[in-house]
Amino acid sequence: VMQLEADRMVHLILAAAQVATERQVILEERRERVDNDPEALFQEQMAAAQYLASPYRLPVLGWKHEMEGLTRADALRHYRAHFAPNNAIVVVAGDVTAAAVKGLAEKYYGVNPRRLVPPRVQATEPPQIAARRLVMEDARVRQANWMRSYLAPTLQAGESRFALPLVLLADILGGGPSSRLNKALVLDNGIATVASAGYDESGLGLGTFDLFARPKPGANTAEIEAKVDAVLADVTAKGVTAAELERAKVRDRAGMIYARDSLGGTARLFGEALATGLTIADVEAMPARVQAVTLDQVNEAARYVFDIRKSVTGVLLPKPAS
Amino acid sequence: VMQLEADRMVHLILAAAQVATERQVILEERRERVDNDPEALFQEQMAAAQYLASPYRLPVLGWKHEMEGLTRADALRHYRAHFAPNNAIVVVAGDVTAAAVKGLAEKYYGVNPRRLVPPRVQATEPPQIAARRLVMEDARVRQANWMRSYLAPTLQAGESRFALPLVLLADILGGGPSSRLNKALVLDNGIATVASAGYDESGLGLGTFDLFARPKPGANTAEIEAKVDAVLADVTAKGVTAAELERAKVRDRAGMIYARDSLGGTARLFGEALATGLTIADVEAMPARVQAVTLDQVNEAARYVFDIRKSVTGVLLPKPAS
Repeated sequence: VMQLEADRMVHLILAAAQVATERQVILEERRERVDNDPEALFQEQMAAAQYLASPYRLPVLGWKHEMEGLTRADALRHYRAHFAPNNAIVVVAGDVTAAAVKGLAEKYYGVNPRRLVPPRVQATEPPQIAARRLVMEDARVRQANWMRSYLAPTLQAGESRFALPLVLLADILGGGPSSRLNKALVLDNGIATVASAGYDESGLGLGTFDLFARPKPGANTAEIEAKVDAVLADVTAKGVTAAELERAKVRDRAGMIYARDSLGGTARLFGEALATGLTIADVEAMPARVQAVTLDQVNEAARYVFDIRKSVTGVLLPKPAS
Repeated sequence: VMQLEADRMVHLILAAAQVATERQVILEERRERVDNDPEALFQEQMAAAQYLASPYRLPVLGWKHEMEGLTRADALRHYRAHFAPNNAIVVVAGDVTAAAVKGLAEKYYGVNPRRLVPPRVQATEPPQIAARRLVMEDARVRQANWMRSYLAPTLQAGESRFALPLVLLADILGGGPSSRLNKALVLDNGIATVASAGYDESGLGLGTFDLFARPKPGANTAEIEAKVDAVLADVTAKGVTAAELERAKVRDRAGMIYARDSLGGTARLFGEALATGLTIADVEAMPARVQAVTLDQVNEAARYVFDIRKSVTGVLLPKPAS
C-alpha cells in the first residue's frame, strides 16, 4: 500500500475521462448526502452564516455549482501545489511496530523529493457583533429542528484555554439523559424528543459550540428556544455543579477507553491532531488535561462562549402546504 | 497628470516607511467611517450574511485585523499582478475632446508594455435557501434601524432582464414622498420617520434590492417589518399601477438630466460600467431602455426578487442600559 501511495504522490496520471467520472462521483455523493437531506443543506447555510471570513464557512465537499465546473487543470494545479512528502501525514494503525512502519515509510516515501509547498494561510474572523438567525422551510422536513451555534475557541485558535473546559461543558449540557438540556426539554417539560450539545476542540481556526433540539409534535421551536435560553442563563449565572463536572469527567475517561476499540477512530484522532499542528505528545496528554479541568474553568468558559453576538440560531421547518 | 499616472503604473517605488504610513491612513479611515459608525459596522455584518460565496460579502476597505497585517510584499504582489495598461480604464471628464485625450493617452500610457494579468474570476452564489436575520445592539445607536436586503440580479449577473425593471420598482417603493413605503410607514401610519428602497443595477455579480426604515420614537421594528411586509405582499399580489410606473420613469429621466450637472458623477458612471464589462453604447442606451420597461416587467421583477429565502433582515437597536 505504501508503495502505491508513494507512487501516486508524485506520478499521478490524470486522464480527462477519469476526471469526468470522478466529478460525477462527487456530485452524486453531494446529491445523496446533502441535496437530498434538508438538515445537511441547512447546516451548509448555518456554517456560511457562522463564519464571516474563516474557510470553515465553506462546505468541505464544495458548492454544487462549483463542483460542476471543476476541471482536470484544477485538479492538477492542486495536486502539483500540495502533494509532497513534506506536506503529508501517514497514520498507520494495527498490528505493527513503529520501527517497522518507519523503515517502510522511509523506503517508499523517502524516494519522493521534498517540494516547496505554499504557506498555509487561513483567513481569521473579524469581530462578530450581530446575532444571526436562519429560517428554512423544506417540504421534505417531517419534524421541526431548532439549533444554535456559538463561535468558540479551539485548542489552536482564540482563547484556547477554554477548549478543554468546553469539552466538559458540552457533556454537562447535552451528553446523555441526565444532561441539563435533556432534563429541561425532554424529561421535565416534555417539549422535545431530543436535546443535545456538541463541541469539537480541534481545528486550525475557531470552531463552534452547538446546541440542538427537536420539538415534540405539538410543541414549537419558540418554546424550545425559550427553554434552552433559560438553561444557558442558569448555567452562566449559577455555574455547573461539582457533581456534574465529575460525571462529565468519568464519561470522558470512559470515552477514551471505548475509543481504543476502534482502530480507525484512534488513527483519525492522531491524524486530525497532526494535521492541525498538534503533536503526538499533545494527544497523549489530553485525557489527563481534561481530568484536571476545574469547576471555575468550566464556568468561566460558559460565560465566555454564550455570547449571542457570535451566535447563529437556526430553525428548520416543514414547508406548509401552499 | 497622465504622465505621472502612466509612470506610476509601472515604476512605482514603494518604501517600507510609506507602506507603514499608508496602512495607518487606511486604518484611520476605517476607524472614522466604519468602526465609529454602528450603521456602517452593521452593514458589514449584513453583507457578510447576504452572500454565501460572492466577494461582495467582504468590506471593500477590508476587515480591520486583516488591514493591520498588510505588508509591503502584499502591496507589491498586488501591484505587479494587476497594474498594467491593458488592465486599466481611464475616464476623462471636462473641457476636452476625445481625439485630444486619445492622443495624450497613447503618448503617455502607450509606452507601458502590455502584461499578462490574472484572469478575473469571481465566486458565484450557490442557491440561497434560508432567510437570515441579524440583530445588533450598540450603545452609540440613538434610534433603531430596520432594514432588509434581497439578493437581486444585476445587468451582468443572474436574471438580468429584471435589472432595469428593478430600478423603477425601487423608485416606486421607496423614492420620494409618494412612494409606497413612505405613504404606508411615514404618512398614513406615522410609525416611521424614514422609509426608503434602493437598488443598484451595476456590478460584476449579483447585487441586492434594499429596504430601510427608521421607526419613530415609540414605534418598534416589529411594527415596521409587518407594515413593510404588507406593502410587499400587496405589490406582488396586485402589481404597481401604470401611473406609478409613469412617475418613476419621469423621475428617471429627470435624474439623468440632473446627473449631467456633475462631471464627476458622469465619469464615475462610465468608469463603473466599463469596469464591470459594459460598453459605452450600453450606458448611452440605458435611459431609453428604462423608459421602455413595461408594467408587466416591473411586476414580474417584483414577484421574482421578493423571495424571503434570499433575504437578510437587519435590526439595529440601541443597547439597553445594563
